[in-house]
Amino acid sequence: MKIIDGTIASPKGFYADGVHCGLKKKKKDIGWIYSEKKAQAAAVYTTNQVKGAPLLVTKEALGVAHQLQAVLVNSAVANTCTGETGIEDAYQMQRLAADKLGLENHQVAVASTGVIGKHLPMEKVTMGIEALSMKSGNAQNFHEAILTTDLVTKEICLSAMIGGKKVTMSGVAKGSGMIHPNMATMLSFITTDANIPYQLLEKLLKKKVDETFNQITVDGDTSTNDMVVVLANGCAENKEIVEDTPEYETFSQMLRMVTEDLAKKIARDGEGATKLIEVSVNHAATESDAKKIAKKIVGSSLVKSAMFGEDPNWGRIICAIGYSEGTFDPSLLDIFIGTQQVLQDGLPCDFHQTNMQKILAQDTVSIQVDLKVGTSQGVAWGCDLTYKYVEINACYHT
Amino acid sequence: MKIIDGTIASPKGFYADGVHCGLKKKKKDIGWIYSEKKAQAAAVYTTNQVKGAPLLVTKEALGVAHQLQAVLVNSAVANTCTGETGIEDAYQMQRLAADKLGLENHQVAVASTGVIGKHLPMEKVTMGIEALSMKSGNAQNFHEAILTTDLVTKEICLSAMIGGKKVTMSGVAKGSGMIHPNMATMLSFITTDANIPYQLLEKLLKKKVDETFNQITVDGDTSTNDMVVVLANGCAENKEIVEDTPEYETFSQMLRMVTEDLAKKIARDGEGATKLIEVSVNHAATESDAKKIAKKIVGSSLVKSAMFGEDPNWGRIICAIGYSEGTFDPSLLDIFIGTQQVLQDGLPCDFHQTNMQKILAQDTVSIQVDLKVGTSQGVAWGCDLTYKYVEINACYHT
Repeated sequence: MKIIDGTIASPKGFYADGVHCGLKKKKKDIGWIYSEKKAQAAAVYTTNQVKGAPLLVTKEALGVAHQLQAVLVNSAVANTCTGETGIEDAYQMQRLAADKLGLENHQVAVASTGVIGKHLPMEKVTMGIEALSMKSGNAQNFHEAILTTDLVTKEICLSAMIGGKKVTMSGVAKGSGMIHPNMATMLSFITTDANIPYQLLEKLLKKKVDETFNQITVDGDTSTNDMVVVLANGCAENKEIVEDTPEYETFSQMLRMVTEDLAKKIARDGEGATKLIEVSVNHAATESDAKKIAKKIVGSSLVKSAMFGEDPNWGRIICAIGYSEGTFDPSLLDIFIGTQQVLQDGLPCDFHQTNMQKILAQDTVSIQVDLKVGTSQGVAWGCDLTYKYVEINACYHT
Repeated sequence: MKIIDGTIASPKGFYADGVHCGLKKKKKDIGWIYSEKKAQAAAVYTTNQVKGAPLLVTKEALGVAHQLQAVLVNSAVANTCTGETGIEDAYQMQRLAADKLGLENHQVAVASTGVIGKHLPMEKVTMGIEALSMKSGNAQNFHEAILTTDLVTKEICLSAMIGGKKVTMSGVAKGSGMIHPNMATMLSFITTDANIPYQLLEKLLKKKVDETFNQITVDGDTSTNDMVVVLANGCAENKEIVEDTPEYETFSQMLRMVTEDLAKKIARDGEGATKLIEVSVNHAATESDAKKIAKKIVGSSLVKSAMFGEDPNWGRIICAIGYSEGTFDPSLLDIFIGTQQVLQDGLPCDFHQTNMQKILAQDTVSIQVDLKVGTSQGVAWGCDLTYKYVEINACYHT
């Protein structure tokens, strides 16, 4: 398995494009991914009880045959809290894309990210769809078209041999605050030319999203429009992947690598962030405990502020563990920041100040917690809390 | 029932004092409350699984006879994550105070707030206790001695007639961040000369703390040292209060007013805060739902940032409701900011921009949510998220 240069359109049979249609002032704001063959598809959605209209339409589409051939995405307007008109608009987006691509409506997923409570200007969207190219587009433009306040595009491309065939998998994501100022959302789209049935795709996607995307936090706010969609069109012509085989294992590792990489890129590009924080919890009673504790630590405003201030404030880490509701024994706790141990068996230990300062000055800081109560582990990712975060979120006006 | 000028020593038979013993550079850092008669007592403690040593000692003391005659409190050092030595130090504090006041050890509660992982300098503490006055102290000094990064002292004093006798109740609190940079904690102490058995005191305290102190959030971090203690010494000589009588009702209202007032003062004095945010949720399916939803809204970093920026960003409010896990129907939601309605039946409505700006510029902003699914209600209090919060928590160094 190796990382290669590529775009969301690198797997065989996929195409993508993005254009500016006027939802944003200047930047690209609408794009699509198209597969020349029907693709097995799976998706996971936000757990927020308020769901954007596109999620309802996409969920319905996937329910028909678990197959997709296109995903149409706009940024700047989330199409959430928009009532019946919003639902109609989402269907209209789907219909327009399907017509232009010669597909059934249910073969097109739609996704939106942006301001809540604003209707989509459908004239602009219609013009945007007209301007999108089916096969001669520029896939990098798609990566840009889905962004809101993100500072960089986020993508990864992998290849590996599966059943003697070269399989490629690409992923792209956006998400800066988990929600930005009314700019909802983390979105991610994954394409692969692997031949794999939707049932396995669905099962693996749920697991990987749980281990990666669901373990990042920028500000603790879960958006109304989060969505991850994976399409597998089989163009690599490998023999259909079967569960619990080496081929399945390779595919599973690829999906994990793609989702983890994108999740970390989202955390690093969190609103106002200056560094990525990675928290590992080891020897927990259960995996659920380990993930929960890791996420509480990385989500603590106090830990996040301390990391911004480059302060090895383990008291805040132990405090977050304490209110995590996970199982642990305070007198067994070991905590490391980078290579430096700060707590042993629940008591502070001396560390090398200069080395610690070097560790905290880096753009990735790792925190490792050893609970010593079991055999499970979990990881979570986040970013520091900075003046810039407050500025972005206070100075934005609706 | 009326609010009167007073201190924690205003109820009959109570005395208090505070001095500087060297835990802080200059400010007062140790103090006590003393009752000349045995007082019925009750306490609630942090839910954090990591608990400071003083909590263990106080819990044990209260378990003996549910009576206290003194509470000894220091600031600057939390005596948490300090192992066996920490427990010994807490017992030593208790013993020293008991000896000086001529009490049994178990009649003295101890509380600490400050840096985690640091041992109490017991020589200084000993000198502090020696310097404290039993009956001729200055109670206002106690209010100051328990502070960490608080900008103001927080107190309230009430009087009411109960069973033909004038009963006084006072409360004092500290707490700036729910945890400050390793400065743990919300602490509150309530004194009253009412005659009431500890069982009722305990029951009422739990309920009121749940409705008030547990409904405030500054940064979502629950400290290791939180503690609320109430002492009722009976010096008002009212007939012992019995459940479900008018006297019980009056006492209950007094306790509610004291805890709500202190809770709001803590929220308003939250680290870096410029305003108090009060969120009411009405017509919820259950009280638990209403409280949960209110707290999620007031705890959202995005809502908090918006309030700092004086932006009526209802999208963030609806989003927080969505991930609260409370029962609601998005299409029924009404939301008001101050007197201005921003959402009706789940859809945005026009509001008066100038009036809205006036509302958001005030130092208290109320947000009201009507779920229209039931008959229960709940309130939560918090503060805005500001540059100053980040500064306080990033620039502090351990």
